This record gives sequence, structure tokens and C-alpha cells, in this order.
Amino acid sequence: MQVPDAPAATRVPAATVNAALDAVRNGSADAAMVPIENSVEGGVTATLDAIAGGDELRIVREVLVPISFVLVARPGIRLGDVRRVSTHGHAWAQCRLWMDANIPAAEYVPGSSTAAAAVGLLDPDCHYDAAVCAPLVAQERPGLPVLAENIGDNPGAVTRFVLVSRPGRLPERTGADKTTVVVPLPEDRPGALMEILDQFAARGVNLSRIESRPTGQYLGHYFFSIDADGHVADQRVADALAGLHRISPATRFLGSYPRADRHPVEVQAHTSDAAFAAARAWVGSILDAESVQAESGYCASPTA
Amino acid sequence: MQVPDAPAATRVPAATVNAALDAVRNGSADAAMVPIENSVEGGVTATLDAIAGGDELRIVREVLVPISFVLVARPGIRLGDVRRVSTHGHAWAQCRLWMDANIPAAEYVPGSSTAAAAVGLLDPDCHYDAAVCAPLVAQERPGLPVLAENIGDNPGAVTRFVLVSRPGRLPERTGADKTTVVVPLPEDRPGALMEILDQFAARGVNLSRIESRPTGQYLGHYFFSIDADGHVADQRVADALAGLHRISPATRFLGSYPRADRHPVEVQAHTSDAAFAAARAWVGSILDAESVQAESGYCASPTA
Amino acid sequence: MQVPDAPAATRVPAATVNAALDAVRNGSADAAMVPIENSVEGGVTATLDAIAGGDELRIVREVLVPISFVLVARPGIRLGDVRRVSTHGHAWAQCRLWMDANIPAAEYVPGSSTAAAAVGLLDPDCHYDAAVCAPLVAQERPGLPVLAENIGDNPGAVTRFVLVSRPGRLPERTGADKTTVVVPLPEDRPGALMEILDQFAARGVNLSRIESRPTGQYLGHYFFSIDADGHVADQRVADALAGLHRISPATRFLGSYPRADRHPVEVQAHTSDAAFAAARAWVGSILDAESVQAESGYCASPTA
Amino acid sequence: MQVPDAPAATRVPAATVNAALDAVRNGSADAAMVPIENSVEGGVTATLDAIAGGDELRIVREVLVPISFVLVARPGIRLGDVRRVSTHGHAWAQCRLWMDANIPAAEYVPGSSTAAAAVGLLDPDCHYDAAVCAPLVAQERPGLPVLAENIGDNPGAVTRFVLVSRPGRLPERTGADKTTVVVPLPEDRPGALMEILDQFAARGVNLSRIESRPTGQYLGHYFFSIDADGHVADQRVADALAGLHRISPATRFLGSYPRADRHPVEVQAHTSDAAFAAARAWVGSILDAESVQAESGYCASPTA
Repeated sequence: MQVPDAPAATRVPAATVNAALDAVRNGSADAAMVPIENSVEGGVTATLDAIAGGDELRIVREVLVPISFVLVARPGIRLGDVRRVSTHGHAWAQCRLWMDANIPAAEYVPGSSTAAAAVGLLDPDCHYDAAVCAPLVAQERPGLPVLAENIGDNPGAVTRFVLVSRPGRLPERTGADKTTVVVPLPEDRPGALMEILDQFAARGVNLSRIESRPTGQYLGHYFFSIDADGHVADQRVADALAGLHRISPATRFLGSYPRADRHPVEVQAHTSDAAFAAARAWVGSILDAESVQAESGYCASPTA
Repeated sequence: MQVPDAPAATRVPAATVNAALDAVRNGSADAAMVPIENSVEGGVTATLDAIAGGDELRIVREVLVPISFVLVARPGIRLGDVRRVSTHGHAWAQCRLWMDANIPAAEYVPGSSTAAAAVGLLDPDCHYDAAVCAPLVAQERPGLPVLAENIGDNPGAVTRFVLVSRPGRLPERTGADKTTVVVPLPEDRPGALMEILDQFAARGVNLSRIESRPTGQYLGHYFFSIDADGHVADQRVADALAGLHRISPATRFLGSYPRADRHPVEVQAHTSDAAFAAARAWVGSILDAESVQAESGYCASPTA
Repeated sequence: MQVPDAPAATRVPAATVNAALDAVRNGSADAAMVPIENSVEGGVTATLDAIAGGDELRIVREVLVPISFVLVARPGIRLGDVRRVSTHGHAWAQCRLWMDANIPAAEYVPGSSTAAAAVGLLDPDCHYDAAVCAPLVAQERPGLPVLAENIGDNPGAVTRFVLVSRPGRLPERTGADKTTVVVPLPEDRPGALMEILDQFAARGVNLSRIESRPTGQYLGHYFFSIDADGHVADQRVADALAGLHRISPATRFLGSYPRADRHPVEVQAHTSDAAFAAARAWVGSILDAESVQAESGYCASPTA
Repeated sequence: MQVPDAPAATRVPAATVNAALDAVRNGSADAAMVPIENSVEGGVTATLDAIAGGDELRIVREVLVPISFVLVARPGIRLGDVRRVSTHGHAWAQCRLWMDANIPAAEYVPGSSTAAAAVGLLDPDCHYDAAVCAPLVAQERPGLPVLAENIGDNPGAVTRFVLVSRPGRLPERTGADKTTVVVPLPEDRPGALMEILDQFAARGVNLSRIESRPTGQYLGHYFFSIDADGHVADQRVADALAGLHRISPATRFLGSYPRADRHPVEVQAHTSDAAFAAARAWVGSILDAESVQAESGYCASPTA
């Protein structure tokens, strides 16, 4: 995994996204690497929901991981013998075409994760024959023969992971950054979603991801999970965030961090830090005017 | 004229709006009371243009003056004898119905101002018989008999005057204020007018007047003269002004001052000073985060 | 289930949402009742994705079903004996608080559906002790004792189902309708999402649901699934749909149908059918002008 | 004057813009050539107001006329002798720099028009010495010696004239057209000006002129006079006009006509006539759906 500082870290497995984030929150881990988005299946709702509530967390890095799947089986099983295949639902969805073409009669057995499905094959009582998992899982378990590689339907598929930690020092601004926020949709007035989007548009801040999620309270009550180009240390992003807070005071900041693709953000002159600084200085000079206003004296008036 | 502090001032007549404003700019007068808008004829372009350029000036007060016209004549002339009537073009336009009904054959003689037209009647060589002017002008010149009163076509007509001085202390915020700005329309991108209006709309600032004026350079090059509800000391107005400055750096602040009608400005919760202060504090707390970010250590990752 | 015309229909079970919709597409069923949204878990992505692509389908009715869960077990098992519980992941998520409070040590066994998990208990080889399912499933299977009722964490939870059929006659306009569309986000210009939302806002059409979904091609490529108030036979909705089609020609209409809550849509005067008809008639009268324009003859020009 | 078809017309002088337009309205003239905008002085309010009310008129052509001024005098007067100069106020404003540099002591005598001021010099009782007028006026009156040419302060100054006739056949679409409308600002809701501008922006229609004018009823009651790129026969313009009519039913169409500069209007794919036609056809196909909807029969439902 391409996490620059990760080699120094001790890796601690966690059963679920929630467990991983809980470990960060309670201090038993310093950070968690969790999937947030997948080019095929969309947002990872468990992650989106878990970081949107509870104690505050911060995304400090993002990583794009190409998605690759292998089919592993119990020792002695050949492809033609496979009757029941277990894996996580997302993985199953991404290999359906290959399954239909190669083992059309195979039945799907839901698994809590791809790794758990693979490891389960080693259990003598296992009630399925094969599992879909990542190549790394197969490598680490020599007892699991690989029946087929690259069985994913979309060769360009990618999962985006984020490294999440407790709030602390912000990652430095690099000029190629992303900022993630969670914005509950205010319910007291229509058009609030457009108002939210306008906070970004009016400052020339582009959005690279927007997802609606239910708050869980009732139908029609949403929050939005948004990735915006730029760093909160960029004036235009800070100004947009202030606008969001006014409209939706429960807006949550989830971090500013370098983009995995290192693509610098293009900024127009009128949304540059210089333009914001000049504008603030100008308004400040108006408000600072302190000399005494003429209250009486000579008043010229045209004889219109 | 209902200018609270005006009684203490010495009144100095000026031939034109430009002359009155020049007297303020060069210090020979402390303030000028000039007409800026008229419910019948619209913006007073001489005033709008004169305060939009040159050395900076500030509007410190506004006054609404009901428009009333009288017809004065040379001594000895009766209404039936009137053949030629002089006045300013705006005044003539506002009495046309009365003229058509009462002295339809009267010919119009353009005058540089209503007062000049009236005073001109006292000149033995005067080549017109009557003049349209304000009742006050007639009162001050006993030699000018009034042939008819209230001859304006629109009984509710009103002229808005503004008291203009050199930049100095801002009038205090009263909660029922107006702010006037001049915004040159940026030419480098389409939709700039909507961007300008959105600076106000996005902060819940209502506009009570908007006028386009040519910059004089070529067709299609405009500036906008705008009155907005609120005082620059209101956060939402200050924020809107900063937005204008970013979009159009030559934006000019012409003053914040009490409304003549004392109508308090209604403010929604999410555009109140409190909302702006809370938003700024929130963004500030994000930027101030100084504790050291975990760069290594335990990293929890779910076995997805 | 509160589907007015459903009693007359023969119910055909289908293993998955995709299987149910395929049955409609291939003609082996006339309609499918599928879940589309859940107040706790959000959009049902399988449904959203399945109706967004493939042969066109139409939503003709919506139904809101309160969510209620029971815990059923293998005969002879008491609550204190439960070690492993199977159900669908969504159901598990909605009963977590109850589980933590009552059988905290129970382990979760993923199931492909709540019904399958329940029925599985009747299998002698079943490797779990209990299942979470709907009360109806338990009623229909007398062999499954109910250990606990109403175990859902959110008593107001509701699932919204839609009745989907092949394109045909539109349900009649009732004045309390909803329209569902799928709009791929155009990628050739920034701000496209605001343009899409503005198509509704500019016609006074309120949105009750908006969900982003990946197209599956690559990260950042989305479509939006949107529910709007009103029927396509309402002029403002038809006009908004035409606007969407211009911006995103692959926009898909998924139906106009009566709201489950029978709440009439409020319409402002300037977005009423009458206003649209008057506007169209007015523009038509301009375009229909056919009399011959004066190309020569007398031309009056002021001597300015 | 560059009016293609004008040579065939008989020219009839009119005292004022109002008189010229009245002649068109009452049928004594077929068209009137009136100034509407001036690069130095801005909108010609007499024209803007006159065509915004009363019987409907149509602009059928526009002409750009370079502004050039000459100083003419009574016979025998030399430049050094000039004490009093008459002309229209707009002309005086445009020659001020030249006056200050060459005859700084000259006094201004208001005139009703530049031509009237020049012709007045031939009157033996004339109480001024010189007049500012157009070169053509001087050429047609050999008795008026020209003391100086090109005395305007802005050499690029231009006046835009429009040829106005009674409603009749629309000028043909050329691909380089302009459309003029008058839109009263609705008072019943804030933000109406942005709504009006959005009608154009949402269809990619650019504006080349926007002027606010008072309706004359009271302060703050405006109408907007707007020039938009394109012809009402362009779908995007027709659609924008329909939107204006909905928001402000008293919107007035003042004509679609070829641009004087022959600059073709650039149109984006999604605002082309083809895009509008495709969108309308698509919505039409939805509304035309006539086949009978399945009300009963087989209904597939997944066992979720």
C-alpha cells in the first residue's frame, strides 16, 4: 500500500471499518486506513457514516489502490468443481461477468469480508468451496491455491482509501490538496442544497465527490459528504467552509490532505489568496476609518 | 430640508452637482447635499457619475424630499397670457399633464435649473413669461407671483438627496442602514453581473436600488451603482463587499448611513453577525490546530 | 403491503432485486415491488443501479412500509442460548443496540436476505441459532419460534418500496405526485450539478430525494437519482425535464406516480400550468407575427 | 446614416423622441430613427421610457453613429469673441474638455437640441454667440460658419440609434441578432432580479445591455431594459422570453433585429436549437405514452 509513512507503523488488523475507527478514537491505534470510495460500487457507506458522527476524526492522507481479485479454493478443488463461492457482496458484484462466463452454476454465499471468506476455507467445516479475495490475502495464506487471477470485470477499477487519525496538526498545504467535509442539509428552507453548492462555486472551489447519506432519523433527512479541491489553508476554501458553517452549523471538517494524484489545483486570479487578502484589507480600511466626520460647517448644495 | 444637523451649517449655493462636489473635494465646503434619485425621472446621472469617479467621497445621510412645483411668472402676466415657460428638463417632464390641461399652447424653453429659470424672470430682457420651480424658490423671491401650485403630475413624487462629504468617520450603525457602492462590471468573463448580485444574495443582503451607467469608454462597458440594506459594520455586508472587491477590484465604497425611513433591516439567523462570528471562529479553530499529527505508530485497518 | 391493486396480482418470489426487475424486463412478470430507500440505511443501491441502466422501466406507485424486526430461532433455542445470528447486513445494522443490550456475545453471520436467513434455520445443518427477519416471514413459517419482537433500534424506521413495470400508460396526475429521474453528470464542464439543480429550482420544483451513484467507469463519474415533487404532466416538471435533457441528453425518466403520503404539492402562481401556458402563448404570438414590415415610407427622426 | 433601406424613405423631422414615436404610433410615419444609447452619456432615457410604455412598438434595425461635434457661430464672430454657447446638455457634457482648453470663459445656455441651438443663431434676437452641433447640421446651413471641428472629448464616442416601427413582420434571423425586452421587476419577492438574469444565463443567452429605469410610481419600483444576444426565433431566446413572462407577466418584447456589428452569436451545443428540439421531443414522447399500464397480473418481489 502506497502510504509514505506507513512502513514505520505497526499494522493492527480490525474486523470492520467501525472497529478500526473505534481503535483510533479510543487511542489503541494512532490511525486507520479505511476504504471510502470505490469506482464500481460507489461510496463505502460504513466509512462515510462512521466518520460523519461520533468523536471527530481527520483524514490525513488518501491512497488509490487498483482493485484486483483472485479466486482461491480449498485444497484439491478445481475450477470445474466449484459449487459455492463466498466473498463480500461488493467483491461478488465486481466479478459477476467472470463468474457467469466461467462458473455460471456457482452459488453465492455472503461473507463479512473478502479476507474472512478466504480464511474460512481453511476451516474443516466450511460449507463453500471457493472464495474471491485480494491477491495479497492469497499470498499470505500458502494453503489456499489460486484458481484464477484478475477476475474483476472492470480492469481499471480502483478503491480509494483514506488514512484517518484523531484531530491534530493539519497536513501541510502542497498546492495539490483535497478537503473533505460533512454537511447536514438544513431542513428549514428549500433550496438549501443549492446554497451549499454555491458556497463552493462562488469561491471557484471545484468538487470532486458528493454523496448524499440519510441521517437515519427519517426519509428525506440527509447529510452530504463532499470532497473539494484545495486546502483549508487556501483562503477560498476557508471562506467556503465559513459559508457552510453559517448555513449548516453542524458542518464537520474531516481534513485537508494531499491528493493521491498530485494534480495541482488551478486557481483563477479572483479566487487566489492574494485576491482574498486584498479584499479583506480593503474592507478593513473602510471599517478602520476613524477621523471625525464633518457634522456641521459649510454645505454646498446645487440650486437644482 | 430635513437634515438633522444641517441647521448649524452655513449654506453655500453651487451652480451644479459637479460644482457642489468639487467644493467638497477641494475643502471649500464640508459637505454637499445633492439629488441622487427621483421617483419619476430615475437616477440623477450627473450625481451618480460624479461620485463614482474622482477623489473618494462618502454619503453620510439621505433625505427624501417630496417634489412640489409651482408656476411663477413675470409681474403682470396672468395664466392665460403665458406663451413660453422655462425650467429644467426634469421639472418640465413632471408637469406635462398639467401644462397640456391648462396652458396647452405654452412653449418650452430649456433652463439650466429650476431656480435659474425662476430668477431669470426678474431680468428685463427675459425671453420667456413663466417658470416652473420649487415653492421655496418662489417664497424667497417676493417679486415672482405664483400663478398655480401643486402642478406636478404625480402627487407622491419624491426626490432622494444624499449628504456627501470627504471620507472620515463612518456614521454609526443604527440597525436601519443603507450602504452604497459602485461596482465596475468586469469584462473578462460572462455572467459577471450575476456573480456581483450573488455576493449580496448569498449573504442575505437585499438591494433597494441598482442602476447601470456607462463608463464612457465604449458601448457595453458599465458600472453599477447599488444601494444595499445594512451597514458595512454588519458582517454580512462586510463579507459581501469583500466578495465584490475580489470580483471587481475597482469597487468603490460610497458610504453606510441611516435610512431616511428608519425601517429596520430584517436579518435571518444564518446571516446574522453571530452566525458570521461563529463561522469564522470555527474555521479559525481548524487552522489553529497545532498538535503534532501522528506520523507513525499503530495503524488499524479493516480486513475488507 | 399497501398496494391498492396488488391483491389481484399473483405474487412471484424473486431471489434478488435484479432478478425481480429482470422478470419484468423479460415479460415473465408485469411488475416488481422493490425497495428503493430506507430511512436508516439510505438508498438501496442495487435498486438504484438496476433501474438506472438496461431496458427502460417505470415506477408506477410508491409504498412506505414501517420497518419491524423479530428474532426467530431454531426450535428449542432460548434467548440466552443464542450464539450466532444471521440476517442481511442492513437488518443487522438496524438491530445493533438491541443486540448489544440483550445478547451482547452473539456473533453475526452474513445472510443474503432476511427471509433466507430465517428459512435457513429449518435446515438441519444450519450453522447459526437465530435470525432477524420481518414479522410476516415468521408468521408464514410456524416452525420458527419468535424470541423477541420490535427489536429494531429506530421505532420510526420505514422502507420505501416502488412498484416498477415496463413503460406504458403514465399514472394519472393527482396533484400529489412524484417524478423520478436519473441524470448522468455531464463531465465537460464544471458546475454541471448546480445547472442540474437549477433546472428544478428555476421552475419552483422541489426535490425530496437526491442520491449520487458512481457509473462504475472511474472515480468521479456519477449519475444522480432524483425524486422531484410533481407529475411530468405538470408544465413546470415537463419544462425542468426538457432542461435536464439539454444539459445531460442521457437523462432517463423513471416515472410520475402518486405520493404515498397524498400530500398535495404547493405551486406558486408563476410556476403554475396557467403561467406556463400564458408564457408559451405570448412567445407564440410574437413568432407568428406575419404582417409585412415597413421597409420604406415615412421615417420620423427627432432632430437631436 | 447607415440605414440600408432608408434612402427610399421620405424623412420627416420631429421635435422630440416622443413626437417621433407618436408619429409612428398614430400612423403618420412608418418608422422612427431614435437614439437609444450613447457611449458617453448612457441610455437615452426619453427613448427607453417612451418605447417601454404606450402602444407596442418594435425595433427592426440598429445603427451605430460616430459622434462628432463642431462649433458654429453667428456670422462675424471669431473664437475669441465667443461668450455664450448653446447646445443640448448631452452635447455640452461631451465637449467640456475642449471648452475648458479653448474658450474657458464661455457660458453655457441650455438648448432643447443641438440642431435647434444651431438654427437659433440665425435669429436676429439670439442671445448667444455660438452653438455645438453635428457636422451635418452645419453643412445644411451655409450661413453658419464652423469655428472648430472634432471638438468632442472622446474620439471613439458613438451613439446607437434604433429604427422603430409598429409591430409587423419580424426581421429575419441572420445568426448575428439582438433581442430587446422590457421587464418590470416583480415586487412580490426578493431576488427577482437574479431570477430574471437567470432566465438568460440558464439558456446560455448573453446580455449586451441592461438598464434600470424607474416606473415613475415610487422609489424602488423599476423596470429593466435589456438587450440579449440572439433572435426570438432561436429556441434558447424564445425559452428565456417565456421564462421572463412567467416571472413578470408584463414583460414587453421590443424586437429581434440584426446586430450593427454583424458579429455572429456563439452557441454552445447544449443551448442550440437542436438541443432544444431534442429535449422537447423527448418530453413529448413521455407524455404521449398511451399504452395501458399493467394494473394487475404477476408481480415479482425480492425476498429482502
